[in-house]
Amino acid sequence: MPSQIVKNVNNKQESGLVIVYTGNGKGKTTAALGLTLRASGYNKKILIVQFIKSWFTGEKKSIEKLPNVDFYQMGKGFVKILGDKKPIEDHKRSAQNALKFAQEKIRSSKYDVLILDEINVAIREKLIPISKVINLIKNKPKELDLVLTGRNAHKKIIELADLVTEMKEIKHPFQKGIKAKVGIDF
Amino acid sequence: MPSQIVKNVNNKQESGLVIVYTGNGKGKTTAALGLTLRASGYNKKILIVQFIKSWFTGEKKSIEKLPNVDFYQMGKGFVKILGDKKPIEDHKRSAQNALKFAQEKIRSSKYDVLILDEINVAIREKLIPISKVINLIKNKPKELDLVLTGRNAHKKIIELADLVTEMKEIKHPFQKGIKAKVGIDF
Repeated sequence: MPSQIVKNVNNKQESGLVIVYTGNGKGKTTAALGLTLRASGYNKKILIVQFIKSWFTGEKKSIEKLPNVDFYQMGKGFVKILGDKKPIEDHKRSAQNALKFAQEKIRSSKYDVLILDEINVAIREKLIPISKVINLIKNKPKELDLVLTGRNAHKKIIELADLVTEMKEIKHPFQKGIKAKVGIDF
Repeated sequence: MPSQIVKNVNNKQESGLVIVYTGNGKGKTTAALGLTLRASGYNKKILIVQFIKSWFTGEKKSIEKLPNVDFYQMGKGFVKILGDKKPIEDHKRSAQNALKFAQEKIRSSKYDVLILDEINVAIREKLIPISKVINLIKNKPKELDLVLTGRNAHKKIIELADLVTEMKEIKHPFQKGIKAKVGIDF
């Protein structure tokens, strides 16, 4: 990349970024995965913790091939939609565990990037209190890049973020009755 | 993923999808890379051809670790911005080569996914005629999933696409004077 747009080294720029991928369109988790692929190419150490999700996805298998990426899927599945009948307490317990787990991991070992996939949905569904996420953001290791994904990002999260992209659905094959596709959607 | 939203096998759904990631926000190429990671986890064969870009990116190194992913960077750098002084004919030649190359590759060997990264910018800058891209989309192998990235996607491309996400910039660290960051931006 041309040098004139590459960061200089100074205090502000040494800090990790807080990145939010939100919106109703496709590409939020995928962008976080792409960032993983990119960061891994620079030998960065990456921790991915997935909220909500509980099903097999292609990335699980590929990630095993990348050095320095730790991937934990800690969700219990969709919340209150698509046939979910689990007590909300089950969802809460797993989301709270996931958050605590992430917090402990970044404290105890050196990660360069932490991805909290679908955490915005966990906040929206009140599985975890927003105050705890704010606390994690404010007290994260200074150099850690933090990525939060999921639709309906809380406005307090957006306020704290350095980079926010809204993935906006312009056209979706579900509109035409095409269902989710293996290797593309999950 | 719960079975009720996973595609059934029928003619329509067997067809590959045409996916567009556009907009002024971060996450377009990264989403395409994430899709690569995901598809690779299902042993799909993926071809990535990058237009415009000519610099080292972290993904180049990681992609080598993934099976079945072929990556070709065929751009000549930014066009008419950030100090570009190259004759437009140089940019045109390389973009046209890249398109031709992609076309020949998908004809001659079996790919499941083709990613034309930054092709929307190549079209906008008139490095390649839109008619040739339309032709590629309309005549692609039926099962091939095709991903086109880059801001300002042409309206004819959007018409032909099955899935379009606009990555919309809500907040960007460049706004605060933070420059591009290794392992995150490239």
